[in-house]
Amino acid sequence: MNIPRHWLLGAFAALSIAFLAVGCAPSGNAKKDGNAGGNDVAGGGSGGAAAEDWKLSDADMEKGKDIYFNRCAGCHGVLRKGATGKNIEPESTRAKGTAYLEAIITNGSPAGMPEWGKSGILTPDEVKLMAKYIQNPVPAPPDWGMPDIRNSHKVLVPVEKRPTAPQTTRNWENYFGVILRDAGKVAIIDGDNYELVNIVDTGFAVHILRTSATGRYFFSIGRDGKVTLIDLWMEKPDRVAELRPVLEARSIETSRFEGFVDKFAIVGGYWPPALVVMDGQTLEPLKMVSSSGYEVNDGTYVHEARVAAIVADHHHPSWVVNIKETGQMWLVDYSNLKGKEGSLKIDMIASERYLHDGGWDLSKRYFLVAANAKHKIAVIDTQTQQLAALVDSNGNTPHPGRGANIDHPAYGPLWATGHIGSNHISFIGTDPDGHKENAWKVVKQVELPGVGGGNLFIKTHPNSPHIYADRPLNPDQMLADSIFVIDKDTLENKRTLVIPEEFRGHKAVHMEYNKAGTEVWVAAWGRMDKRGAILVYDDKTLELKKVITDDWMITPTGKFNVYNTVHDIY
Amino acid sequence: MNIPRHWLLGAFAALSIAFLAVGCAPSGNAKKDGNAGGNDVAGGGSGGAAAEDWKLSDADMEKGKDIYFNRCAGCHGVLRKGATGKNIEPESTRAKGTAYLEAIITNGSPAGMPEWGKSGILTPDEVKLMAKYIQNPVPAPPDWGMPDIRNSHKVLVPVEKRPTAPQTTRNWENYFGVILRDAGKVAIIDGDNYELVNIVDTGFAVHILRTSATGRYFFSIGRDGKVTLIDLWMEKPDRVAELRPVLEARSIETSRFEGFVDKFAIVGGYWPPALVVMDGQTLEPLKMVSSSGYEVNDGTYVHEARVAAIVADHHHPSWVVNIKETGQMWLVDYSNLKGKEGSLKIDMIASERYLHDGGWDLSKRYFLVAANAKHKIAVIDTQTQQLAALVDSNGNTPHPGRGANIDHPAYGPLWATGHIGSNHISFIGTDPDGHKENAWKVVKQVELPGVGGGNLFIKTHPNSPHIYADRPLNPDQMLADSIFVIDKDTLENKRTLVIPEEFRGHKAVHMEYNKAGTEVWVAAWGRMDKRGAILVYDDKTLELKKVITDDWMITPTGKFNVYNTVHDIY
Repeated sequence: MNIPRHWLLGAFAALSIAFLAVGCAPSGNAKKDGNAGGNDVAGGGSGGAAAEDWKLSDADMEKGKDIYFNRCAGCHGVLRKGATGKNIEPESTRAKGTAYLEAIITNGSPAGMPEWGKSGILTPDEVKLMAKYIQNPVPAPPDWGMPDIRNSHKVLVPVEKRPTAPQTTRNWENYFGVILRDAGKVAIIDGDNYELVNIVDTGFAVHILRTSATGRYFFSIGRDGKVTLIDLWMEKPDRVAELRPVLEARSIETSRFEGFVDKFAIVGGYWPPALVVMDGQTLEPLKMVSSSGYEVNDGTYVHEARVAAIVADHHHPSWVVNIKETGQMWLVDYSNLKGKEGSLKIDMIASERYLHDGGWDLSKRYFLVAANAKHKIAVIDTQTQQLAALVDSNGNTPHPGRGANIDHPAYGPLWATGHIGSNHISFIGTDPDGHKENAWKVVKQVELPGVGGGNLFIKTHPNSPHIYADRPLNPDQMLADSIFVIDKDTLENKRTLVIPEEFRGHKAVHMEYNKAGTEVWVAAWGRMDKRGAILVYDDKTLELKKVITDDWMITPTGKFNVYNTVHDIY
Repeated sequence: MNIPRHWLLGAFAALSIAFLAVGCAPSGNAKKDGNAGGNDVAGGGSGGAAAEDWKLSDADMEKGKDIYFNRCAGCHGVLRKGATGKNIEPESTRAKGTAYLEAIITNGSPAGMPEWGKSGILTPDEVKLMAKYIQNPVPAPPDWGMPDIRNSHKVLVPVEKRPTAPQTTRNWENYFGVILRDAGKVAIIDGDNYELVNIVDTGFAVHILRTSATGRYFFSIGRDGKVTLIDLWMEKPDRVAELRPVLEARSIETSRFEGFVDKFAIVGGYWPPALVVMDGQTLEPLKMVSSSGYEVNDGTYVHEARVAAIVADHHHPSWVVNIKETGQMWLVDYSNLKGKEGSLKIDMIASERYLHDGGWDLSKRYFLVAANAKHKIAVIDTQTQQLAALVDSNGNTPHPGRGANIDHPAYGPLWATGHIGSNHISFIGTDPDGHKENAWKVVKQVELPGVGGGNLFIKTHPNSPHIYADRPLNPDQMLADSIFVIDKDTLENKRTLVIPEEFRGHKAVHMEYNKAGTEVWVAAWGRMDKRGAILVYDDKTLELKKVITDDWMITPTGKFNVYNTVHDIY
């Protein structure tokens, strides 16, 4: 099929606050209510001051589509029916009128709409264009199915031509895969000596990297839905296969259960709303399942029910697949899948909306996921395969990333999440057998220095006495340029590390430990027009130990240590 | 929500060849190819003789919607994307032009399009209207979800006020539920003495009745998606609960596994494409799952993936749910469903398109379903929960209803299906353990007297030496007014029973035995403007034994003996 240009290329525009597009609207002073972006526009404009002044030329419609896809779709949805953001179908928008919409797009709203105009990300002309664009009928998004997916499949190095043992003398298990977000690349960096090993072309705006269960492969998933399989056993790690299972995506995972190690991989689609299972060695597409469905609260139909975080269950041959807008957690059993034959079995567990990101508890029995519209953490017990709890996170819009686990001397095992919309790091008890009194509730909260939330990630390591938190979405520049070091025992903020002056304004985002747990890598992710950096801090002294930067260091964001990713260490 | 009038009322128009609307287009001389309705219109008209002559007034659009829903949607789909019939979206239809479309609608096509005009079912004005209507954009069908479903729920007699033992001295296990199709009613008739016990208001054009596992309840499902629960233990059986889980439906089933007897019921939706699970006693809606998905042949997305036949698995706490357009057989495990809590587990098994109707083999281990576009019978082994076979039915467009089972002295256990598009009753071996050489292939075929197919149903009973077949869709009036009696041993047509002269032209359709298997009930289903009849034949003498007719006997179609339905005897 022919895909309109904006689906293929539009996404390559520079995104200086690109994290917003992954469903993370800043809402520092949002009211705590059922829908984080649900009540920003109460009134309306004159509703028709100039009749049909929203009509656009074909060229402007195309331009609007590009901008919409890059800036708006993450929160408002491809179909504009709303999710983290409001419904902005013509029925809603035309009643507001162009002038009113321009004001909102320019100035944002307290409930989470970014100030696209005021921040300079959109020009006044672009703001005006978008105010009109969203009053036009919603363009039908392209279908995308197996014929398209098969056409996108490339095996660059066949399995039989790949190394059978590591071809490098480097300590590849301490490699870091560093996402160069807006460059559409991933840098492989040697964690022992900070040397660049290779830069690999990937999809645009890679959201995460996952390793195969053996650690031998990196799987990258672009926001544009492109999967790149990178072989770390090659002397110079490089692409060995590519696939575009969907047009927009956020999640990827591999099969990890005994007997299925590295056999399958799964991608979660934002558009089309679907999951796609692939061969773990070749990326050959095997099965595709729609995630459209009926949401858990009142049971209305959601076509654009997007797939958020996916993890491989350690107790069963299955994945936990979170369906964002329906609030369902699917346990997808792959044990009967035999290549293209056989079947997937899906246990559809009702939880809460909107499921987004999450991670394992310390025992790797419980998977905890933010249901961010309800300020809750949904807990799946992968041993019993039942919903164990819905925990009030005691903050606004939890965004754990993978969260952080500690075994606290007083409270027992705890899992922590930060919040986008409030200044709370919440510690939740995760041991109903050993510490029943603390289980599935917030037992302790940390407020970080300064005002407001904006936290996206939190990280620790069993060998470290610390937990690190970022706040890149905080409107205070200094807070956004800092990381915060929490003491594991006292559960208090022990130190604030402001990034070096030359990288100020870049925002500090996403932490990762080296394999040994002795140092922490942080991204100064910056803009397309300026070098960013990876800042390496010594975990003991909390001193900046190394700055990794170069001309290729463009918008570094997530970074994934091979060993820590294989073992889900956080 | 507000449902447009045509969704609620339009369906009540008289349908003299209403069975066509359930996806059973006659195709007596259709070519055998991949899509029964797929190659009827090879050429095209002038493609725009009068520019946009297809535009219609709002009133005519409404009228077109009604007719479309009643006559066309069954084969072409609500979204007009095609299924058993062709794609008739504007992109296809406008290229043909109004005059050409009028000709096709009037005269039909060899591939299966009925002659709507020539048969007098549509007036010339209506034909013209429809030729224009289908060139207009497809109206968005209404969403329908849990809020709407809950609004439709009525418990007319609470469980605690229902009888705890049968309140009748009648032999209620030999009751027949007789569908009065176009009256939107079901007659309960005493099979011992042919007396009318009661007439119950149901949904429109009830497609089937299923009993609860105990036989105590009849569940009726209207084409309009309305479920009616009828309590047969009341002195006068009557409605005790109602629900409209979907807007258009064909299938309903109850839970039958040990520990779940009469606990749940499930409806398969045509629109919305979804399954809905209800409480088996109150019809309270519990869970809804979309059946939209990716089809098994090339993996393209099908929004309107309709739910066809459903049966309760005897080996597991699950249902076999056939998704017509995707060609998937879903094993829906209800064992973890706890009222509205808990979850459904779905094993999505790829099979063939378009799954329609089917029944059990003699051992009730294998469920055999027509994949009618591919002229195949898909076989699910409910013991191993795997696809056991895809059998070429050796005829055009198999339509088994439930099929018919015999244990043949030479061939062993056989299951039979007739065909809409060819004059073949095909007998398929179903015993891979005992008769491996005959398993999963057609071992014998019967051709009935006269030319052409048109068979819809076939039926037998373990106490009967016969198999009965109808041919209501055969264009030869005498064949359509006859039933055909096949000898179980010789597998040859033994006798043709022409219905009494006063009911000629009504067409004979659907057979059912009494509990003892000594007599066979056949419907002369006729038209709205004429009494139909139930004709009772003595199975031994093959003589007409009783004619049940009255002013209320309007368009009788399916009839379901309580005992035989409970035990799936056919």
